[in-house]
Amino acid sequence: MIVTAKIPLATQGHCDIIDITRDTEKALMESGISSGTVLVFVPGSTAGVTTIEYEPGLKKDLPEFFNTIIPENRGYHHDAAWGDGNGYAHVRAALLGPSLSVPVADRRLLLGTWQQIVVIDFDNRPRSREIVVQITGEQDAG
Amino acid sequence: MIVTAKIPLATQGHCDIIDITRDTEKALMESGISSGTVLVFVPGSTAGVTTIEYEPGLKKDLPEFFNTIIPENRGYHHDAAWGDGNGYAHVRAALLGPSLSVPVADRRLLLGTWQQIVVIDFDNRPRSREIVVQITGEQDAG
Amino acid sequence: MIVTAKIPLATQGHCDIIDITRDTEKALMESGISSGTVLVFVPGSTAGVTTIEYEPGLKKDLPEFFNTIIPENRGYHHDAAWGDGNGYAHVRAALLGPSLSVPVADRRLLLGTWQQIVVIDFDNRPRSREIVVQITGEQDAG
Repeated sequence: MIVTAKIPLATQGHCDIIDITRDTEKALMESGISSGTVLVFVPGSTAGVTTIEYEPGLKKDLPEFFNTIIPENRGYHHDAAWGDGNGYAHVRAALLGPSLSVPVADRRLLLGTWQQIVVIDFDNRPRSREIVVQITGEQDAG
Repeated sequence: MIVTAKIPLATQGHCDIIDITRDTEKALMESGISSGTVLVFVPGSTAGVTTIEYEPGLKKDLPEFFNTIIPENRGYHHDAAWGDGNGYAHVRAALLGPSLSVPVADRRLLLGTWQQIVVIDFDNRPRSREIVVQITGEQDAG
Repeated sequence: MIVTAKIPLATQGHCDIIDITRDTEKALMESGISSGTVLVFVPGSTAGVTTIEYEPGLKKDLPEFFNTIIPENRGYHHDAAWGDGNGYAHVRAALLGPSLSVPVADRRLLLGTWQQIVVIDFDNRPRSREIVVQITGEQDAG
């Protein structure tokens, strides 16, 4: 059984980190699937998905890290060609990756206690996005 | 339903970035699967997979980024032991990762408009590879 | 068909790299599934999963790489708030990611010859973990 849902997001860009754990759990519950896999996928090439402990300190640490290894103004070939100034966002998104798979058992995501699913929007402006949440698995008999 | 296909690639190594979106779509069409998941997997430890906007600027930006954070000649223990000189390629591939999952609905990959699936070959020589494309899902009734 | 297994790990933390390929193959064999996908998932926010050629050189190269780009003592906001001193481990784990999917055909993981599945524990102390191995697929008729 396969259910494909979408989570609409209005992001601020600029390394905005959005916790989508609750929305993912809601999609899982609505699917009725009790065991299987949740695939979270970001359509687009300037945002990515991973897990973190979603707390205020790390919400600063992660952007500082990306600013250090992939600074905004290194002089990207992408920007020279297209003039949209978000070359760094493309490189960061390629590095982080657009897909995350989380196992499900007994109707629950098998996340750690301090582990949340987050989308990081690296673009240089606010964006409206639709994150794909696809649940594949089995329903309980009962 | 599960279909496992392979995409043969002849790469140049040295951060060669190959767009395999069309080949992946072809494998999806041939599978007859209309909704489900496509898993793209790179067998081997010196190449990885992600998505980017496949355009000439980023095809230079990404190699420059990897050369900066994982330079070729930092003096890798792998090279000291094995003498094949591609220690940097192993570290880059471990960081990028060998697997990518893309959701499928209505017979289409749910990619963004400017988002292509790419294999990046980090090795220090041309390579022949077979990328695994595994499609899991349901066929339409019609 | 979906089988969810767990691999218990006692790690040393501090970039301890643990080869879980054999344990993953064992879970696959016990599942009886002959074609499909193995999802390896790390519950928790201070460890990640990827593939490498598991040999002594790279077991030094990868920790040195992470120490260089995400040093232990950069002054993380996470540490200022929580005092547990493992902010760097959270950033490294978010970058590497907690999930890896490997295709299966003919009862075998489609890994490269020199490619092992590894968990990297970035935390700043020994940890007991349970890695989730979820196998989705079909059994042979025979």
